[in-house]
Amino acid sequence: MSYDPSPKVQALQQRLLAFMDQHIYPNEARHAEEAERLGPWAVHPVIDTLKPLARAAGLWNLFLPESAHGAGLTNLEYAPLCEIMGRSFLAPEVFNCSAPDTGNMEVLARYGTPEHQERWLKPLLAGEIRSCFAMTEPKVASSDATNIESSIVRDGDEYVINGHKWYTTNATDPRCRIAIFMGKSDPDNADRHRQQSMVLVPMDTPGVKVLRPIPVFGFYGMPDRASEVTFTNVRVPVSNILLGEGRGFEIAQGRLGPGRIHHCMRLIGMAERALEKMCQRTSTRVAFGKPVSEQGVTVERIAECRIAIEQARLLTLHAAHRMDTVGNKVAKAEIAMIKVAVPAMACKVVDWAIQAHGGGGTSNDFGLAHAYAMARVLRLADGPDEVHRQQLGRMELKKYR
Amino acid sequence: MSYDPSPKVQALQQRLLAFMDQHIYPNEARHAEEAERLGPWAVHPVIDTLKPLARAAGLWNLFLPESAHGAGLTNLEYAPLCEIMGRSFLAPEVFNCSAPDTGNMEVLARYGTPEHQERWLKPLLAGEIRSCFAMTEPKVASSDATNIESSIVRDGDEYVINGHKWYTTNATDPRCRIAIFMGKSDPDNADRHRQQSMVLVPMDTPGVKVLRPIPVFGFYGMPDRASEVTFTNVRVPVSNILLGEGRGFEIAQGRLGPGRIHHCMRLIGMAERALEKMCQRTSTRVAFGKPVSEQGVTVERIAECRIAIEQARLLTLHAAHRMDTVGNKVAKAEIAMIKVAVPAMACKVVDWAIQAHGGGGTSNDFGLAHAYAMARVLRLADGPDEVHRQQLGRMELKKYR
Amino acid sequence: MSYDPSPKVQALQQRLLAFMDQHIYPNEARHAEEAERLGPWAVHPVIDTLKPLARAAGLWNLFLPESAHGAGLTNLEYAPLCEIMGRSFLAPEVFNCSAPDTGNMEVLARYGTPEHQERWLKPLLAGEIRSCFAMTEPKVASSDATNIESSIVRDGDEYVINGHKWYTTNATDPRCRIAIFMGKSDPDNADRHRQQSMVLVPMDTPGVKVLRPIPVFGFYGMPDRASEVTFTNVRVPVSNILLGEGRGFEIAQGRLGPGRIHHCMRLIGMAERALEKMCQRTSTRVAFGKPVSEQGVTVERIAECRIAIEQARLLTLHAAHRMDTVGNKVAKAEIAMIKVAVPAMACKVVDWAIQAHGGGGTSNDFGLAHAYAMARVLRLADGPDEVHRQQLGRMELKKYR
Amino acid sequence: MSYDPSPKVQALQQRLLAFMDQHIYPNEARHAEEAERLGPWAVHPVIDTLKPLARAAGLWNLFLPESAHGAGLTNLEYAPLCEIMGRSFLAPEVFNCSAPDTGNMEVLARYGTPEHQERWLKPLLAGEIRSCFAMTEPKVASSDATNIESSIVRDGDEYVINGHKWYTTNATDPRCRIAIFMGKSDPDNADRHRQQSMVLVPMDTPGVKVLRPIPVFGFYGMPDRASEVTFTNVRVPVSNILLGEGRGFEIAQGRLGPGRIHHCMRLIGMAERALEKMCQRTSTRVAFGKPVSEQGVTVERIAECRIAIEQARLLTLHAAHRMDTVGNKVAKAEIAMIKVAVPAMACKVVDWAIQAHGGGGTSNDFGLAHAYAMARVLRLADGPDEVHRQQLGRMELKKYR
Repeated sequence: MSYDPSPKVQALQQRLLAFMDQHIYPNEARHAEEAERLGPWAVHPVIDTLKPLARAAGLWNLFLPESAHGAGLTNLEYAPLCEIMGRSFLAPEVFNCSAPDTGNMEVLARYGTPEHQERWLKPLLAGEIRSCFAMTEPKVASSDATNIESSIVRDGDEYVINGHKWYTTNATDPRCRIAIFMGKSDPDNADRHRQQSMVLVPMDTPGVKVLRPIPVFGFYGMPDRASEVTFTNVRVPVSNILLGEGRGFEIAQGRLGPGRIHHCMRLIGMAERALEKMCQRTSTRVAFGKPVSEQGVTVERIAECRIAIEQARLLTLHAAHRMDTVGNKVAKAEIAMIKVAVPAMACKVVDWAIQAHGGGGTSNDFGLAHAYAMARVLRLADGPDEVHRQQLGRMELKKYR
Repeated sequence: MSYDPSPKVQALQQRLLAFMDQHIYPNEARHAEEAERLGPWAVHPVIDTLKPLARAAGLWNLFLPESAHGAGLTNLEYAPLCEIMGRSFLAPEVFNCSAPDTGNMEVLARYGTPEHQERWLKPLLAGEIRSCFAMTEPKVASSDATNIESSIVRDGDEYVINGHKWYTTNATDPRCRIAIFMGKSDPDNADRHRQQSMVLVPMDTPGVKVLRPIPVFGFYGMPDRASEVTFTNVRVPVSNILLGEGRGFEIAQGRLGPGRIHHCMRLIGMAERALEKMCQRTSTRVAFGKPVSEQGVTVERIAECRIAIEQARLLTLHAAHRMDTVGNKVAKAEIAMIKVAVPAMACKVVDWAIQAHGGGGTSNDFGLAHAYAMARVLRLADGPDEVHRQQLGRMELKKYR
Repeated sequence: MSYDPSPKVQALQQRLLAFMDQHIYPNEARHAEEAERLGPWAVHPVIDTLKPLARAAGLWNLFLPESAHGAGLTNLEYAPLCEIMGRSFLAPEVFNCSAPDTGNMEVLARYGTPEHQERWLKPLLAGEIRSCFAMTEPKVASSDATNIESSIVRDGDEYVINGHKWYTTNATDPRCRIAIFMGKSDPDNADRHRQQSMVLVPMDTPGVKVLRPIPVFGFYGMPDRASEVTFTNVRVPVSNILLGEGRGFEIAQGRLGPGRIHHCMRLIGMAERALEKMCQRTSTRVAFGKPVSEQGVTVERIAECRIAIEQARLLTLHAAHRMDTVGNKVAKAEIAMIKVAVPAMACKVVDWAIQAHGGGGTSNDFGLAHAYAMARVLRLADGPDEVHRQQLGRMELKKYR
Repeated sequence: MSYDPSPKVQALQQRLLAFMDQHIYPNEARHAEEAERLGPWAVHPVIDTLKPLARAAGLWNLFLPESAHGAGLTNLEYAPLCEIMGRSFLAPEVFNCSAPDTGNMEVLARYGTPEHQERWLKPLLAGEIRSCFAMTEPKVASSDATNIESSIVRDGDEYVINGHKWYTTNATDPRCRIAIFMGKSDPDNADRHRQQSMVLVPMDTPGVKVLRPIPVFGFYGMPDRASEVTFTNVRVPVSNILLGEGRGFEIAQGRLGPGRIHHCMRLIGMAERALEKMCQRTSTRVAFGKPVSEQGVTVERIAECRIAIEQARLLTLHAAHRMDTVGNKVAKAEIAMIKVAVPAMACKVVDWAIQAHGGGGTSNDFGLAHAYAMARVLRLADGPDEVHRQQLGRMELKKYR
């Protein structure tokens, strides 16, 4: 009769929080320093130091519902754990729970052949390699998935792949070994949702070229390594197809639900952290004779943040519950709702936290500018808010027809 | 593991919705006409016609948790039923679930003596009389309860009561027989929260004068009969005190929690109804060659409404769950949150519905101007948003001290 | 090099402000009482008492640019005077500067024949009669003027008029003698803007029926007497046409510009008054030990109001200047801008003033609920904001084609 | 009778726009590339290439009102020219009109001794060196200027200076030769606004250490080179004081007015540019079968942007006019208004432009993320919005005491 976490989840929360206190927070400054100094083309050693500890602590692959490979938690059970990881940019990868690897592992676990799983899923689950998801294209509005121009053409036992992609997260990571590539294998199919296929493309295949990392509000590679990649006459065996020709859109849809829960829960954790910083800073900073927290709009904004975070969390847990009980398709309204509501909430909370920190809030010293960039780009990732509101509004209008 | 209603509550929802379809919606135009023609000093016959039907249908006093008198539902169970009643201004009184009678009945059930209960609670539960709650005063900022200036002075076996009150809902109703009066019996007590007492004052006691009904945005008496009342040397026996001298603040606090859940759930029902009207109107209204629903911002606003309503509902159910499980005092943050969030949501949704109806939206023809007035005044009732945000913000800041 | 008023205008401002102090503000309570007691079908005596004083003071028909009939002020010169009148609901009619009479007088002065002017313009200028403008229809979205369904059919020397109108301001006023009626005389004309004509219809013509007054947020007849009117086989001589058949849309467009300046400047005056009340109330109201004005968000909201009012005034003066120098057509973007920006500003300022007054802010005691209703309906009058934003946005996009 | 530019200013606008077309826009990509590659410690060659061209074109030092040194334009005359420069991050420095050099030159021109002017003002006017303004401190809330902790202690013929500063724009620029340093020379003075002094500190004085550049949302050194600087036992001759001991606050106040006009006008130019990009992008980008500009909220947002920009410009021109006619002190309300209103407008416009560009809007490819960072930090520079709203609100409340 509530969304309070179960005892099992509470126990995991405690262990996770303890790990955060012991290993994550104390290493955040090191992570920031390495990320800035080494840049988006390098592995950041702090990550490699901490991953074995997380694995040893049993806090590993918690995201994966399939108990054969992962923790076997439902979306509703994983959500509060994901929130905790979202409190630090360093955390998700340390726990092997960072995008897009999580979504890619889910796809491989669900749709991959035993060979795919042996070759790619296994090292991904072990945190030995990373992966990317090549879908968005610079030349078309990707909010409309049918705009995709990349091509997958069968030639004998191979597919010949051509395409220009960006926002291909992870591609600059030297450990990134495999791309899930989305393109059109049947561009003339009358059913616009059967034109696309997904193919596994090893990153060392000739013709794959990582052009550049893409900054987000000036930030490179942390937390995400957005990248631009071209695929020129890339050839892979036909066995690299996932699920079958024309099933790309279907896989993409199924992949989105959990990914959105994850993104949203991480943003909620990030917003909680920003609110903490806002409370701490304004309580200790004095202007005009008293703490900033006791002046003007500050305390009311703190209240607004609390309300907004609670609402966002309840909505996301509700969406997770719906996904668990009625499935992605039936829960599509709830998934669209969190996609719109949660990044907007996070932008507002973080923006106010920045404002409460004065000029320094826009620097890297408090992690808030970073957090804003993260929240802001998630109003656009997987399609801008506007597209999701359009879909949601249409579902609502349909009730009266 | 969710806030989905239990089978018991689902069954009540079905019966309530059927009653709404059969008896409430078809009588709304009659109710509006009677309310406007007869005014705030009169009984509106439609109410008296429908009340026996509701009672006969077993949809009566559902709000009251004490199973001795009422339905014995928890706050979380009653909440979705209260939402349904909120869909129509006519409904709450028909089901004997309208404010402030509900809060007054709770007070009498919990703190009244057997004599109080026999004389006042019984006819209130039967829907034979109505009651008012005299707390707010025109001359002081009532958001600070310690500002109250009314006096309760003991003189032998009687209290002598003097005070000037407004926003005393129901006082112009000819069936209103009893007031719960809040005043200061010990204005010099060092503990500011022990200065107040609550006393039962029959409305026909000499010295009680109902000065005028107070309109809300021009609306008199529907849905609430806000009134201004003076108490001049009013004498009542000392046995009319509730709980004891100096306990007034304590009773007021206990009374607020459920009342806020009720107000918020009714607003959610009202917002759902406004959204329905918005969808229906814009789907059938054509401008520049296509339905308004397919143009510009309309569909995105509909989506925003859906998101806002879902978040408000989840937050209110969560607050109800907390009240049921940890009590009013511990749940005060959650109660403050819904007090701030839900009326603001309802104002936004109804305002957009008005806008979608064009000029007519501001008339009485669609019930939306009424709904706006209702939502707007609830941003002020029981203290303005700002006061609740201040309290909530301070609770948040305390976590870091 | 600024929008500061000229010495001539400053002198008029001083005289107007003195009249406000001496005659308008002291009579506001009387006006409110008469408006509520006598209702929308009656003349309110206070108006008739004050009009001769205003005329004697030379503060009469200041709105009319044509010096033959009026004050001969430009739009930019009249604007700050109109703002002053907007400070009180009582003022515009007292100075014979209230809508829709002002727009109707302009139409008659510009397009009326000498006979029209002798019979209707003269008594309107003298303030002896009132007039209405019958354009908006309940059955269609009037934001799209080509939706109009009313018909004007020539039959010999007469036009036969049929139509159902609402938001026909003034029609319930017993002094209302003449309607300017907009209908389709040529519904099949390929040019959608040549289908309409405007015809003068005396209100005592058989077939004209004033069905009801229409409330705005519960308020009847003050400040505007919105009404619903049917025209059934109404016959008028063909000489009653204005400008010629098919010119109705053209007249309507020309009429809109000055009317919007007037509406906006009055709203600015109204917003200034609301801000005054907000400052005064919060300075004198004490809660939690200090004036409300020194707490929380109040002082920042006051600052936001000041900024918003200044921006709205500058934009409106700029639009007036543009209208005076380049004409209505070229200045259409500026006119659309104020139509969107100023009512939204007024809604915000008045809403905050209400909030600062506590519950009483929603009553009639402070004039703020009234002011909100006025500002709110002006987001819809002459087409909802959304339509004007669509047009303005398209003008902007055209720059890049 | 308007804020339309005079013929003299129109002629300058034309010349400036032509220069922008010919030299600035074509070099923006080069500038971005150099800024990123060379970083905040280096001179960017493109600037040095273009400065001689701007000087040769007579488009040089236009900001300086004193005709002895500069163009002799009033604030109102310079404002529309400054707006044009704001359209490109590259432009202000090319025209020798970039902050904080402009403010520093004004201070030197007004308060500097002939020796100061010869040594520092002359090369600054020639664009040969740059300067910084060391006021904000990391350890205290600098929104309250009396919080400053840096010390200026006289020791014989020298001042000994100690302080820790940040947001000292320009300090990492290798051409930066002189700092205007603000510190407390008389920290115990009962008059809190007489405690501060300003002293000229050559950057090569022993004890001056530029610690690091400070990023703004991840961006280093473009458009501003925010820096952190320590001053440790720095000794300068007493002749380096500006205006005299205890006059620091007074100079700071006088310096702020024109600086705010400049910042605001540049933001308006930047917002115009963002709106242009938004119109162009959405007109050419197709999703779901039609241009994005014709869908959903896009066109209404474009309209909102246009309205917001117009209001911001008029308010800023009005503030400039007031500064020119009544002086900084009397115009302090207007200056506070633009400080609050214009960066907020720019944030909104640029944010919507980002949203309209999809994910790419957050990259560096369109200059929009940069523009957002610029607008966002200006909600904090010279004190956060909240402080200015507090002051403005208090000025408003004083009218009623």
